Amino acid sequence: MDAKEFRRRGKEMVDYVADYLENIQTRRPLSDVQPGYLRQLIPGEAPQDPESWDQLFPDIERVIMPGVTHWHSPHFHAYFPTSNSYPAICADILSDAIGCIGFSWIASPACTELEVVMMDWLAKMLELPDQFLSGGKGGGVIHGTASEATLVALLAARSHAVNKAKECHPDMTDAQILGKLVAYTSDQAHSSVERACLLGAVKCRLVKSDENEKMRGDALQEAIEEDKQNGLIPFFCVATLGTTGCLSFDPLIEIGPVCQKENVYMHVDAAYAGSSFICEEFRPLLNGVEFADSFNFNPHKWMLVNFDCSAMWFKDSSDVVDAFNVDPLYLKHENQGAVPDYRHWQIPLGRRFRSLKIWFVLRLYGVKGIQDHIRKHVRLAHEFEELVKKNSAFEVTHEVTLGLVCFRLKADRATNETLLQNINKDGRIHMVPSESKGKYFLRFAVCAASTESKDITFAWEVIQELADQLM
Amino acid sequence: MDAKEFRRRGKEMVDYVADYLENIQTRRPLSDVQPGYLRQLIPGEAPQDPESWDQLFPDIERVIMPGVTHWHSPHFHAYFPTSNSYPAICADILSDAIGCIGFSWIASPACTELEVVMMDWLAKMLELPDQFLSGGKGGGVIHGTASEATLVALLAARSHAVNKAKECHPDMTDAQILGKLVAYTSDQAHSSVERACLLGAVKCRLVKSDENEKMRGDALQEAIEEDKQNGLIPFFCVATLGTTGCLSFDPLIEIGPVCQKENVYMHVDAAYAGSSFICEEFRPLLNGVEFADSFNFNPHKWMLVNFDCSAMWFKDSSDVVDAFNVDPLYLKHENQGAVPDYRHWQIPLGRRFRSLKIWFVLRLYGVKGIQDHIRKHVRLAHEFEELVKKNSAFEVTHEVTLGLVCFRLKADRATNETLLQNINKDGRIHMVPSESKGKYFLRFAVCAASTESKDITFAWEVIQELADQLM
Repeated sequence: MDAKEFRRRGKEMVDYVADYLENIQTRRPLSDVQPGYLRQLIPGEAPQDPESWDQLFPDIERVIMPGVTHWHSPHFHAYFPTSNSYPAICADILSDAIGCIGFSWIASPACTELEVVMMDWLAKMLELPDQFLSGGKGGGVIHGTASEATLVALLAARSHAVNKAKECHPDMTDAQILGKLVAYTSDQAHSSVERACLLGAVKCRLVKSDENEKMRGDALQEAIEEDKQNGLIPFFCVATLGTTGCLSFDPLIEIGPVCQKENVYMHVDAAYAGSSFICEEFRPLLNGVEFADSFNFNPHKWMLVNFDCSAMWFKDSSDVVDAFNVDPLYLKHENQGAVPDYRHWQIPLGRRFRSLKIWFVLRLYGVKGIQDHIRKHVRLAHEFEELVKKNSAFEVTHEVTLGLVCFRLKADRATNETLLQNINKDGRIHMVPSESKGKYFLRFAVCAASTESKDITFAWEVIQELADQLM
Repeated sequence: MDAKEFRRRGKEMVDYVADYLENIQTRRPLSDVQPGYLRQLIPGEAPQDPESWDQLFPDIERVIMPGVTHWHSPHFHAYFPTSNSYPAICADILSDAIGCIGFSWIASPACTELEVVMMDWLAKMLELPDQFLSGGKGGGVIHGTASEATLVALLAARSHAVNKAKECHPDMTDAQILGKLVAYTSDQAHSSVERACLLGAVKCRLVKSDENEKMRGDALQEAIEEDKQNGLIPFFCVATLGTTGCLSFDPLIEIGPVCQKENVYMHVDAAYAGSSFICEEFRPLLNGVEFADSFNFNPHKWMLVNFDCSAMWFKDSSDVVDAFNVDPLYLKHENQGAVPDYRHWQIPLGRRFRSLKIWFVLRLYGVKGIQDHIRKHVRLAHEFEELVKKNSAFEVTHEVTLGLVCFRLKADRATNETLLQNINKDGRIHMVPSESKGKYFLRFAVCAASTESKDITFAWEVIQELADQLM
């Protein structure tokens, strides 16, 4: 495909994409193919000779689309939203064409520098404390996912903790210290925290959450005390703002002082909820972030920036740079130190030009446009909540703060499991379940940017209809 | 931006991108901005109100392009190539629009299933042993970068080694075992191996390479023996096919049997060179891969698939799944086990639909088209090699096998350093240096897909001119 053909085919793809997104509500949100469906539809080996676009293009509908679960359908209510916007797609086309690998400043200065400024823009929108802004010790970086951000924070904290423990106990080996390190998080935290501990080879202690699914300061303090008495070294804590299961918020103003007193690194994971903090009415949920050593949220979830774009800030970036820095000659350049070399802030070496999509989205929507988007989703969630509350066969199980409603039939677990299965078998809408403290419930998330009141009503009618059949 | 405006702006972006890539040779390959240049060109905060496309679009040239190092310029000869092709850009537009987060099969079956088949296509193109194909214990997965693949392999091997050591020594704690684990790689290996050991909290032993920069079997065996005598546990070895510094190839047929005998997990990193193995004349470089537990190369380097797309295969995927598996309710689905849930094969949870770009590239180029691309690059490297050899002031320092030529002035290190600096200051071409065993040299990589003989001649004229000025 030469430039001339790309001008034609790229534009056909733009039209295909616009058609797809304009008519997405006509497709079944959850794919109903069987495992292995695709292998039967395409050859077992790559073609030796080039095929034409006209041979390839129809295969998008024939091979791919039957197996797509349509995350941007207004009838998709599973997991959390993932963003999709036309400005972000335009930015990604540009990013692909520039195709730089921004592992160091010199490898494409614009790639690093736009990221620095965009992370400052976002930090100011969230009213993060000044220490997280660039220019001093702090600063932000784009990761792929919140899971990576958690792992990076843990590894930075681990390196710091090992060095500190060695100062006090010069006789201890790294491995001995490692064997004593304990990380803390709520029993409601995302599985990626436990996984980060597994990969980081440190103990993970799940602190029991309270009746509102929050990790409280006193429970954390108690766990730390107990571990210290057993000769362990508390070093790291992940507090969650907006848990995946039921969107509970750990009180940072309780947890922060405990971490500070105990010299425990505090990372705050606000993967989904973080975007909402740009609205003044939700900003109080972030109170206490001043205690955090690092903070993370995903613009790719709820800020109209396409995946992947997970924003992370450090109060002191040397925490991570010191832990990750390995510097061969072929990556050195003259301006080291004057600007961040983001390869030291992340797990991979290479990185795409992801700040372009933040820039395009923030400029073409404006802060107000994004606030409108978030407020609409919250309003729709409350509309759904009201519908659930009007039907006495159901109950809302958790407080509705943002765009997630947790609810269940007033019936046993098996009945609720069957209801969820039937909803997904029916296929008009898609949802996933969750549980906490042994209680199973259904999660209704407002996901697609195009979701409107009529889609909420539609979803509720489907749910009621299937519940009626069941009861 | 609504669908109507996207149809217009997306197409304008397609034209901008075609214009950019058609005229890229007119731009200075290495950006000459000073650190901090960008901050002065844009506001310190995000706009409150939306801006128009007409306000944004000119800023690509005003703000971004001055700070771009043009990796796809035919005058860019630094690092290794990174791919860029029109079919891959078209596929990424589609991937962005579908915008699924393929962490599990059900989250978008096509995303997982196309990846399984594309990894089989690639494996067959490389003539990987059947054990690496899907259907049995083995299979492939797309990572972001080779650094991640190395880390994933190390963590899988670590988990396996800890479990095995516990069987023999039930009295030892995980931390005690961890403290004894040793990973091996050549002193020529990429810095990401040392970094993976740092993050994985295991010892890294750099085995001294021979006079041809290869890690030899006997040197590895000797290192392992010594460590075992000191009570350590050898568990992991990374062999490199095509080192970053000078493109040396570790002989797998020597290293493999040592790893097998010593029960050491062998990972093979062929990040750049891997693509060439689809050409029969280069396939012998891969001999011995049958000993590997995992193998990795980057289609995003030399196979016309845009970054990021790093292909990794396991002989037994349970190595990694067992090490990484943490499974909350909201991610479970009915078809678990029948198909891979790739979240267990990688560091992040979420993942993009990256196999689409492999599919588009392989179909629209055909295997032959990609072979032509690789062979052209190798031919151009040999053309450059001949030019260097004709000038008695220079010497070629390492064997030219693929698209990289290592050379230097027959002069001291300082002179060569100055030459390299002057080349990059001059700005007509861009290169980076390397060193091995204290010897500094310049690396000339054939990078852009559009590079032709005239660009090689041009580069050599620039180098000679600047060398003449210096001598």
